[in-house]
Amino acid sequence: MSQFPNERRVLAAQLSTRTGETATLSGWLLNRRALGGVMFLVLRDRSGTAQVVVDDAEPAALIQELQVESVLSITGEVVADERARGGAEMRAREITVLSAVTEPLPFEINKPVLKPSLDIWLDRASLSLRHASKQAASRVMAQLAASYRAALVRRGFIEIFTPKIVGSATEGGANVFPVNYFDRPAFLAQSPQLYKQIMVGVHERVFEVGPVFRAEPHATTRHLNEYISLDLEFGFIRDHRDVMALVEELLREMMTDLREACAGDIALYGATIPEIGTIPIVGFREAQEIILRVYGEDCRHEPDLAPQHERWLGEWAMREHGSDFLFVEGYPTEKRPFYTMPGTEDAAVSNSFDLLFRGLELITGGQREHRYEKLVEIMARRGVDPDPFEGYLDAFRFGMPPEGGCAIGLERFVAQLLGAANVREVTAFPRDINRLAP
Amino acid sequence: MSQFPNERRVLAAQLSTRTGETATLSGWLLNRRALGGVMFLVLRDRSGTAQVVVDDAEPAALIQELQVESVLSITGEVVADERARGGAEMRAREITVLSAVTEPLPFEINKPVLKPSLDIWLDRASLSLRHASKQAASRVMAQLAASYRAALVRRGFIEIFTPKIVGSATEGGANVFPVNYFDRPAFLAQSPQLYKQIMVGVHERVFEVGPVFRAEPHATTRHLNEYISLDLEFGFIRDHRDVMALVEELLREMMTDLREACAGDIALYGATIPEIGTIPIVGFREAQEIILRVYGEDCRHEPDLAPQHERWLGEWAMREHGSDFLFVEGYPTEKRPFYTMPGTEDAAVSNSFDLLFRGLELITGGQREHRYEKLVEIMARRGVDPDPFEGYLDAFRFGMPPEGGCAIGLERFVAQLLGAANVREVTAFPRDINRLAP
Repeated sequence: MSQFPNERRVLAAQLSTRTGETATLSGWLLNRRALGGVMFLVLRDRSGTAQVVVDDAEPAALIQELQVESVLSITGEVVADERARGGAEMRAREITVLSAVTEPLPFEINKPVLKPSLDIWLDRASLSLRHASKQAASRVMAQLAASYRAALVRRGFIEIFTPKIVGSATEGGANVFPVNYFDRPAFLAQSPQLYKQIMVGVHERVFEVGPVFRAEPHATTRHLNEYISLDLEFGFIRDHRDVMALVEELLREMMTDLREACAGDIALYGATIPEIGTIPIVGFREAQEIILRVYGEDCRHEPDLAPQHERWLGEWAMREHGSDFLFVEGYPTEKRPFYTMPGTEDAAVSNSFDLLFRGLELITGGQREHRYEKLVEIMARRGVDPDPFEGYLDAFRFGMPPEGGCAIGLERFVAQLLGAANVREVTAFPRDINRLAP
Repeated sequence: MSQFPNERRVLAAQLSTRTGETATLSGWLLNRRALGGVMFLVLRDRSGTAQVVVDDAEPAALIQELQVESVLSITGEVVADERARGGAEMRAREITVLSAVTEPLPFEINKPVLKPSLDIWLDRASLSLRHASKQAASRVMAQLAASYRAALVRRGFIEIFTPKIVGSATEGGANVFPVNYFDRPAFLAQSPQLYKQIMVGVHERVFEVGPVFRAEPHATTRHLNEYISLDLEFGFIRDHRDVMALVEELLREMMTDLREACAGDIALYGATIPEIGTIPIVGFREAQEIILRVYGEDCRHEPDLAPQHERWLGEWAMREHGSDFLFVEGYPTEKRPFYTMPGTEDAAVSNSFDLLFRGLELITGGQREHRYEKLVEIMARRGVDPDPFEGYLDAFRFGMPPEGGCAIGLERFVAQLLGAANVREVTAFPRDINRLAP
């Protein structure tokens, strides 16, 4: 028998299962209106909302004095009522005020749209996060993380926890945040890249869901300086196509779960959960040709795709393939990190990929160089000091299979799914060059 | 149909399901011995180990030249053999070396015990983490995190992701790591405490699994400067006893899952998974009386329990109640953080608790002060500057039910479960005052 919760409380969403009984609803006062001597309240709890009718003058007056968001516990009879959401409402008999809000709210949070500007939302996050749209975004985020983990655990992946304070800026010195570690220099990890590769030597298949830190000194609508990265890495692959095949399956399972668990949250945004068939794949050079042919811009001399190129490719993928997603593979080796596996036919074309989702880069991944001597050689050629990589190189010195992996930016995924114009709209407490609070 | 994995590989643990067939094993060379012209290999993969017999002289000579931990792919016939682990072995026909280890290992990792000292293990983590005992520890860690999440999701809790870079050292200034955030001062979050409380106002029931950072300038066997905290927080409680009731259920479910999923890993350590009945509860003052009565030390004037006191109490709980766990409740309010709810009968005795596991503090939790005016008053009395708490205080100003929560240190839990003498033994990449690498 469960000792928890030891309460007679009924959740709003379950009210209709208790018609004819006396029950207690607890939650936040979302709305109220007086109508011919009767007061109608809407109470919000974690399950949704329920309507409560107060026809006694005294408690009605008490409620009238409170601001919305006050926390109430209301005991009364549950009656069937077709007009009420869920088919039932409560006739209040006793109202307890658990937390009285007396100060007017700085903005309305019980309307379909949050009116104030983004910066005001974010400054008053404790309040604005209670808005239905923000609640929905955080439920979607939690669901994606949970589905991601579950899909990987089903495939024998093991969750790992790798350090966020690191001794050296191993993935490029410019974009790291310095930490004062007992008066020694240290940095915040830009990704768990090196650690997850090490762990392939231990468990073959690993994943991590955790924060990463990027000191990029610019504010765009799609970047955060701290975000949640869904990382995975696994061994015994043939090449990056095995990683792409896994990504396709993962995304399909994540979207299926989302359809089941968060249909209402998605609908609130008027968004559509993508159907994932076979995700089309284009080569990097081919992508540039498409851009020239279809959109008239010649970017064939460039070593990477610009955001506008990605938007065009997203549009093209939808029109030509009916796909929200598009894999671009074979990025120039020189533009990818040192651990990228060069292609076997042409070493200048790497075994790497990006996945575009509705025209925005969502996932970066690929096969890694697992051959110790080659890795040392590439690092030397690129002028990478091997000293801070001692522990990393050990993993390859002592036996590493062909391996690869990828990383998904969680907040960006949610933003793109919900059609949010700015990743900050779906992030509870975003960190950017101008924002450190709350 | 799954595109991934697109391979004919068989895992070691499934070898016996393929007797009579030709299959491919891939993994790390764990061991080999030559016996009368025949070579016996043991190959390790993510599922376990399998024996391979090589009776052809040429591949046997090739293997002889490799060091253990080389990565091989071996194709051959699977034959039933009662003497082999799992009841089957492979007769090798073709061996591919995926990664040749040519350098002798700095220490043996295929023996039951890792012989070198802890510091050497940790320096060579890429290798030592492959040892069976270290693999087992990380599987237990992953399982505990997964069970924790699942148990909470079943109860309507939502996973949250809160920032690790914070603008002010809100929970006491001494033990935080400073971060240079675009030349502005910032800090690493010591816990998600304030954020999870804010999120109770949004979702009622929330949890987080993520890193926390403590700049405690001392090295003990039970502390890390970065560790994974299993946090939870929920509203509409009566008092801290509701948090304790949840903790008891959670731990029980986590131990049940562990028994199913990780029996072998636990056995490897010769450890026992605790049976959790009703966890005994003693008051803080009562605990001090027990220490005086049973162990003869008078600590009744002290405002907290020392490690030795906790060890005695753990011993006492086992002897008197047959319990690995003991709740101590009602710590002096003055010694707990400002957000702690004072008791209703005696404000000097807080609605807080610690949970001791085998004589070591594993969980700290309690009811929080949710009344806005009281919170402001307590902060003023304690001399806490309210400015950096503006966003936090908003959550209470705009309606917060009675609420509480707790936090579990994941690495410490694993260490204590497995009977490891030092938390670093079960942590993949520990961070302490002397260690930042790998």
